[in-house]
Amino acid sequence: MADQSGINERQRELFIRKSTRVAAAYLKRAKELAELPDAAKPFFDVLENTYVNNVKEITGLEYTSPSDFTRCGAELLRMADIQKPEERKSIGTLCVMVPAELVYAAGAMPVRLCSGSYTAYSIGDDYIPRDACPLVKAVMGFGKIKALPAFDNCSLLVAPVTCDCKKKLAGTIDSVKDTIPLHIPPLKKDDADTEIFLKELYRLIPLLENVTGKQVTAKSLAEGINMVGNAQYEMSEFLKYRRHDLSLMSGTQVMAVMNAYSYMPANIWAEQMHRLNEEMKLRLSQGRFVSRKNQPRILVTGSPIAFPNIKVPLLIEEMGGVLAADETCMGERGLYDPVSVIDASFDGMMRSLASRYTKPCTCPVFVDNSQRIYRIKQMIKEHKIQGVIYHVLRGCLVYDYEYQLMEEAMGKMDIPIIRVESDYNEEDVEQLRIRIEAFIELIKMRTSA
Amino acid sequence: MADQSGINERQRELFIRKSTRVAAAYLKRAKELAELPDAAKPFFDVLENTYVNNVKEITGLEYTSPSDFTRCGAELLRMADIQKPEERKSIGTLCVMVPAELVYAAGAMPVRLCSGSYTAYSIGDDYIPRDACPLVKAVMGFGKIKALPAFDNCSLLVAPVTCDCKKKLAGTIDSVKDTIPLHIPPLKKDDADTEIFLKELYRLIPLLENVTGKQVTAKSLAEGINMVGNAQYEMSEFLKYRRHDLSLMSGTQVMAVMNAYSYMPANIWAEQMHRLNEEMKLRLSQGRFVSRKNQPRILVTGSPIAFPNIKVPLLIEEMGGVLAADETCMGERGLYDPVSVIDASFDGMMRSLASRYTKPCTCPVFVDNSQRIYRIKQMIKEHKIQGVIYHVLRGCLVYDYEYQLMEEAMGKMDIPIIRVESDYNEEDVEQLRIRIEAFIELIKMRTSA
Repeated sequence: MADQSGINERQRELFIRKSTRVAAAYLKRAKELAELPDAAKPFFDVLENTYVNNVKEITGLEYTSPSDFTRCGAELLRMADIQKPEERKSIGTLCVMVPAELVYAAGAMPVRLCSGSYTAYSIGDDYIPRDACPLVKAVMGFGKIKALPAFDNCSLLVAPVTCDCKKKLAGTIDSVKDTIPLHIPPLKKDDADTEIFLKELYRLIPLLENVTGKQVTAKSLAEGINMVGNAQYEMSEFLKYRRHDLSLMSGTQVMAVMNAYSYMPANIWAEQMHRLNEEMKLRLSQGRFVSRKNQPRILVTGSPIAFPNIKVPLLIEEMGGVLAADETCMGERGLYDPVSVIDASFDGMMRSLASRYTKPCTCPVFVDNSQRIYRIKQMIKEHKIQGVIYHVLRGCLVYDYEYQLMEEAMGKMDIPIIRVESDYNEEDVEQLRIRIEAFIELIKMRTSA
Repeated sequence: MADQSGINERQRELFIRKSTRVAAAYLKRAKELAELPDAAKPFFDVLENTYVNNVKEITGLEYTSPSDFTRCGAELLRMADIQKPEERKSIGTLCVMVPAELVYAAGAMPVRLCSGSYTAYSIGDDYIPRDACPLVKAVMGFGKIKALPAFDNCSLLVAPVTCDCKKKLAGTIDSVKDTIPLHIPPLKKDDADTEIFLKELYRLIPLLENVTGKQVTAKSLAEGINMVGNAQYEMSEFLKYRRHDLSLMSGTQVMAVMNAYSYMPANIWAEQMHRLNEEMKLRLSQGRFVSRKNQPRILVTGSPIAFPNIKVPLLIEEMGGVLAADETCMGERGLYDPVSVIDASFDGMMRSLASRYTKPCTCPVFVDNSQRIYRIKQMIKEHKIQGVIYHVLRGCLVYDYEYQLMEEAMGKMDIPIIRVESDYNEEDVEQLRIRIEAFIELIKMRTSA
């Protein structure tokens, strides 16, 4: 009973069992790192809903969740609703460079589909060349297997043409679901570069309106900008707590919270972040820290760390490091820079969006990306970082290219750095563990010397 | 006595010895495949000058050329002159998407620097991530070693941002030589896409003028278009002979002739091609063929085949195949489509250029590249192709991505196809030889069955 994609029901069942098991296990490990703040639980629930419960629901498979905390009631139910297409159309985005503001302005819900699913990766591997990155293989895998409601419910995909993998994915995944490639200029210095992206955003508007039947107006655009702006505000408040020398929350848990943003409306995420910030404030006043003095403070940067592929953050913290900051697109970077509207006209807002999604972006898909080094140097100071783990997904050439520059810059600052390469499977875990453990030991020795 | 790049004189000497030896040996093998037409000899001389003699000259190293034919006198001397910077400024181009017409219009000589040098590759490998393609490593290698006059004499590099490797190369090779990244739109269907490239070409004009001190005028642009147009005309005439069922010239030798275009002014190349066409006409009238009936007719497509890396064409012909056609950028594709000027104003000519270098281009750096399949199907009919060898340079993801589509299309046409992956070294030659030999045997069996 194979469908068009050549995947039969038996394979699909195996896929779902394996996929839900891995996602649940990683959530469990993240929770066990340190006491999870109560206000962070709904974010974990969203990830569990997206990758475990909703999948079970549509498939009818028996599955016992290892979840060990009670659901957060009404709040969570509201969040779970977002993935039902009858409530609101979903637009799948294949990179953080798609302005969520514009999708909200068109009355739709943006869902970030960059995934870290190992099982989806193994399906996608059959459709995509061996040397392509695992992230695009996972996206293609979900396209083929049709077992992730968050993906299947999307009415349209928007695929920024950032790197070769995303470019060619845009061309091939179109056979599974309508896909709009979004042109990203290779430079970002001049206004002419932003102009290119601005044109693309204008081109996107009618395509979104066509899906939702709603018009993007100056009012709805301002609301969209405001909505995402609130989320960014809560994020910036949160970063103040994250920077605290003794950590108030595990860094891996923080990355899960950031990843949950992919599957939640920005306003609900912001409301919950507000509660989390309150809890951080309380923890700080009570001196309830999750790290000890002299635990090495690590920054992770490099290729996207998309749930469930959180093995690198998990290993850093399980090996005794403090994941004190991340410079990754699915983490801090995605919500770091706010849109600054100077001219409140429609075109003025559109220009602000085009500018915000290109100029401050430190993704290595730009020819000149020296900004990224400045940003990381700044983060090292702000977060009191003692070592950098540079994460390269196999085949993620653009990040790999910048490692040498980063190594030189870190050398000058006397900050140890290692490059760890990983793929979407668990075969490299032991090797990663040994390298990360040795790196953490090295930092400990340096500080005690 | 290491210079800034960390390469000392001893390494440089070793590099030059090895590099010139490989280039000379490959030229020799290409000549031995079949009787080289007299009119093709100057093209071989240009390659030998570029990669062997000129290198010796600047370095003063002793080197005995294995060249077994006499120089073609005055003609050749004129050609050799082009690489002397005092005569005319050279602009290095890092992809065939840079309009040569515009460079000529600015009074400079365009030199295609995409190289197949194994030794330069091994130098570049230290500066570029492992998984990047060997072609960009070779370019970077020449940038660092400073032992290829054709490269060193360039006043400026123009680097179309086509794929990730070229994009990041543009960002890093700038430290060696001033580099202008040229933005290539990811789509080519709409006028808006061409418009992006048009703007880039306009941006390029003053940068070129700045180097040469000469202005790009309507007259000089028309001359540039005319000059390249003549080369394309001779090429199209040549293709008529190339299509002949019994070959008039070895396909590997043809690819060397195409590669020589990289280092020659278009008008001189065209003049010499005219002589080659005369000789082809003569060979045809005399029935002097270089292939026999029933020799399998092969088309090679895929990643660039840049001199001296002609091992795949060489193996095809040494194993008894006829390399009847190529769909590669350094081969037929680079000179296939003429610029059609409808509006003879300056802007009209610029638009024609922008259009010619994007719309008909079948490079897989475009999101939708279905055109390439049509083109290959057409070539299969025109050149009576019996099998396709799909060449993937290691790390050349964009070509690898399109293999599946090509395989499906060939399956429907009942044309056998194999994917051969290769790197810039001689270690994979035996493996390639076995696979190519088996493929040729397969085609022989099919036709005799």
